Amino acid sequence: MNFHVLTLFPEMIRNGMNTSITGRAIAAGYLSIEAVNIRDFAYNKHQKVDDYPYGGGAGMLMQAEPVYLAYESVVQRIGKRPRVVYLTPQGRVFNQEMAREMAKEENLVFLCGHYEGIDERVLEEIVTDYVSIGDYVLTGGELPSMVMMDSISRMVPGVLSNKESGETESFAGNLLEYPQYSRPEIWHGKAVPQVLMSGHHANIEKWRREQSVIRTAKSRPDLLKKADLTNKEWNYVRQLKKQWKEETQQAAAYADMTCEPEKEEEL
Amino acid sequence: MNFHVLTLFPEMIRNGMNTSITGRAIAAGYLSIEAVNIRDFAYNKHQKVDDYPYGGGAGMLMQAEPVYLAYESVVQRIGKRPRVVYLTPQGRVFNQEMAREMAKEENLVFLCGHYEGIDERVLEEIVTDYVSIGDYVLTGGELPSMVMMDSISRMVPGVLSNKESGETESFAGNLLEYPQYSRPEIWHGKAVPQVLMSGHHANIEKWRREQSVIRTAKSRPDLLKKADLTNKEWNYVRQLKKQWKEETQQAAAYADMTCEPEKEEEL
Repeated sequence: MNFHVLTLFPEMIRNGMNTSITGRAIAAGYLSIEAVNIRDFAYNKHQKVDDYPYGGGAGMLMQAEPVYLAYESVVQRIGKRPRVVYLTPQGRVFNQEMAREMAKEENLVFLCGHYEGIDERVLEEIVTDYVSIGDYVLTGGELPSMVMMDSISRMVPGVLSNKESGETESFAGNLLEYPQYSRPEIWHGKAVPQVLMSGHHANIEKWRREQSVIRTAKSRPDLLKKADLTNKEWNYVRQLKKQWKEETQQAAAYADMTCEPEKEEEL
Repeated sequence: MNFHVLTLFPEMIRNGMNTSITGRAIAAGYLSIEAVNIRDFAYNKHQKVDDYPYGGGAGMLMQAEPVYLAYESVVQRIGKRPRVVYLTPQGRVFNQEMAREMAKEENLVFLCGHYEGIDERVLEEIVTDYVSIGDYVLTGGELPSMVMMDSISRMVPGVLSNKESGETESFAGNLLEYPQYSRPEIWHGKAVPQVLMSGHHANIEKWRREQSVIRTAKSRPDLLKKADLTNKEWNYVRQLKKQWKEETQQAAAYADMTCEPEKEEEL
């Protein structure tokens, strides 16, 4: 997989992507990451890449031509027109399925916007995928493109060793990960759950599965529908929900009770 | 706002956060970002920070003690117990509202996991917020913590100049941003829309609002419900949807028609 990043901050990309797993995969030849400086393609006196928006408005806009020429330099080098991802809050929200799908490409271009955006005409001409990494506003496209590259890389064959799991337990079967413990056996007075020390693999699996179900029901109930739960597990989830509801009601009732006198004093 | 990042890759944080707006805000004293190397708090022969998980399983786990001591070093320095954000796919999904809310803190600690996770006991002891930046798997917590810091920084008073808009037009009123154009007037044969050259501000505003509505209806219809549309705009959206539906049906009918002979040849 070859990533090509069109950016005004090439150093940010170069420094950010060579640690840990990504760095190792680059060294081993499974990945390459090239940062193309858009400013190198601004053929004017001060290598200016931005200008005012027509019709007025706050801030500056990245102009079409330098972006286009930076893109064309990649096309010339690789000899084909690759997919171009533009990072924008307007885009489709990135998820694990998109990571898996994009990992099949041989080349991927990321276009990183800055200032108040990029001239619409060059977007129309080169962009194939409008993508957002979430519903929050960021300064530029560099960080989200690094997030996408990290996530996509993990799905490229050879990048992770056999011992590592590309998707980790976190999303396997749409259940959240169970709690994990390492040495020492007792830390700050807290012991590792006995079952994990038992060496009884079937019981360990059972406990972990149950913990995953509890956590998912508590933090991400939206995932449960997609998870492959047994009837017994569904019953357990219903029982948990009932129990949590009762606890919340009791807590609320208790809060009401203890607050009452204070309220009266205020009157 | 003071960010403290507990990490095994301090260089990644230091290199990634001093460009552009964030770098300028650090220089101006509105922000500080400190990367605390967890490995500096592993007091064993090889500064080892990980070990096998109890109960078996793939990969290694970050141990409780070095993480705890790195956190305590921050607490000692600032003299209080700040909020601690742990980046995990199990967390609440980060959004603009959380960015706004977290920007009110004086200190924020980010705990970046690696390998297969962190010993549950230290998470229970120090973490106040479990946060995910989206439904995809990443190698470690460094990139998502940088994403969060970028987004939160923009909401800290003084970080953005008056000319810059913290949330940009993108999410203002829950509508996506309208297309923007800069010089030249004609690029690759494509002209800037006439209305933007008219100097007629009311018409420009009207056109931009309409474009925002069209884009939102097309790419993120889920946002429309929260947007403050007029009755006239709702009617327009309904009309657009009808038109797009017809176009899709026509295209499908046309595709069927042209494919038919080929299918028969195959039989």
